[in-house]
Amino acid sequence: MSEEVLLLETWVSPFAHRARIALEEKGIKFITKQENIHDKSDLLLKSNPIHKTIPVLFHNGKVVCESTLIVEYIDDAWSTVAPFFPKNPYEKYQVKFWANYVESKVWGAGVKIWQEKGEAREEAKKAYIDILKVLETELGDKKYFGGETFNYVDIVFCPFNVFLYTYEKHANFSAEKEIPKLVAYANRCLERPSVAKTLPDPKKTYEYILELKKKLGIEE
Amino acid sequence: MSEEVLLLETWVSPFAHRARIALEEKGIKFITKQENIHDKSDLLLKSNPIHKTIPVLFHNGKVVCESTLIVEYIDDAWSTVAPFFPKNPYEKYQVKFWANYVESKVWGAGVKIWQEKGEAREEAKKAYIDILKVLETELGDKKYFGGETFNYVDIVFCPFNVFLYTYEKHANFSAEKEIPKLVAYANRCLERPSVAKTLPDPKKTYEYILELKKKLGIEE
Repeated sequence: MSEEVLLLETWVSPFAHRARIALEEKGIKFITKQENIHDKSDLLLKSNPIHKTIPVLFHNGKVVCESTLIVEYIDDAWSTVAPFFPKNPYEKYQVKFWANYVESKVWGAGVKIWQEKGEAREEAKKAYIDILKVLETELGDKKYFGGETFNYVDIVFCPFNVFLYTYEKHANFSAEKEIPKLVAYANRCLERPSVAKTLPDPKKTYEYILELKKKLGIEE
Repeated sequence: MSEEVLLLETWVSPFAHRARIALEEKGIKFITKQENIHDKSDLLLKSNPIHKTIPVLFHNGKVVCESTLIVEYIDDAWSTVAPFFPKNPYEKYQVKFWANYVESKVWGAGVKIWQEKGEAREEAKKAYIDILKVLETELGDKKYFGGETFNYVDIVFCPFNVFLYTYEKHANFSAEKEIPKLVAYANRCLERPSVAKTLPDPKKTYEYILELKKKLGIEE
């Protein structure tokens, strides 16, 4: 059967990157359409009326929203290739636990680093590093969060690391010094074709955030 | 095999109720232990060091945290009885989409109704009703969110309806008038033994919230 797979995304969104990496890991052929989040298309508004956010995946006419759910759907719909979850119920739970930790904590804490200033930024930096240190402990000496297997936690987490450069530039710290194992992990992820093809240059992302701040009226 | 299942909970927590309802739906024998969230036990702090929250499920010595993940784990570990998800990947996605909607929107919006005052409370009430009206549209004329099947969305959502009475008393509105189909749905859920056994009297919950407000220094 010929599959029609379209991903509505923006090049800078780590949430869209999750979907892209999942598609690449499964070896699925897909096309993408860039969305302008400052002037949302009718296609986006009609396909995701509840959240109005990218990414949106179209699979043979079916619409799938929300980045973590897109990754899970891809795993279910193409279940015979490179599974993102272990089969054992308890191991599967552990994967979901850490993905949940990433999803509920990492992004929001990171955004504060460039949105806040002065003392609040300093606090945001500390909170962010603390959150990442917990992940570093969980990673330990494993290659990926999934051990030798690049799994759901890796797909959900690794796109956020593009922003480390932006956070370092804003809050004057060295990720290499604070979370060396996670930095080495981020580099290992980039050795995978799925990730290398997907993630943008951290400097380009940083420039984008500087532009976004101007647009939002956030002065340095 | 004899299963050892212990649930660490508080009687008032809708998150713990999700776990209880899931266990009841599967016909699993379990014991419970009441936790004091104002003086957390060593058992809680050791078993859930990341979040330090109830519910926590202990299954043959394995520890499972986070209410939605507990429900999913129960479904995976006792997979042959009363599945909480459809098998079809797209239908499964749709169930997760609505559970995700509930999880990210309903509770936080409801809490604001008793935490805020005056105009802010009025706004919180409106926002809450709007969030629930979206769910009411999704429910439509179905018996449950899962149609004839009481599914994952139902388990995740229905415990929150105990608090409708608390919200009504605080913000002076009639849920019956604003969201009549959801009120009828909440009553239908209470006809299930799993739910009837689990959910407390809404008036007792209201009294608890009044006491909690005093403890938190929130005056009316």
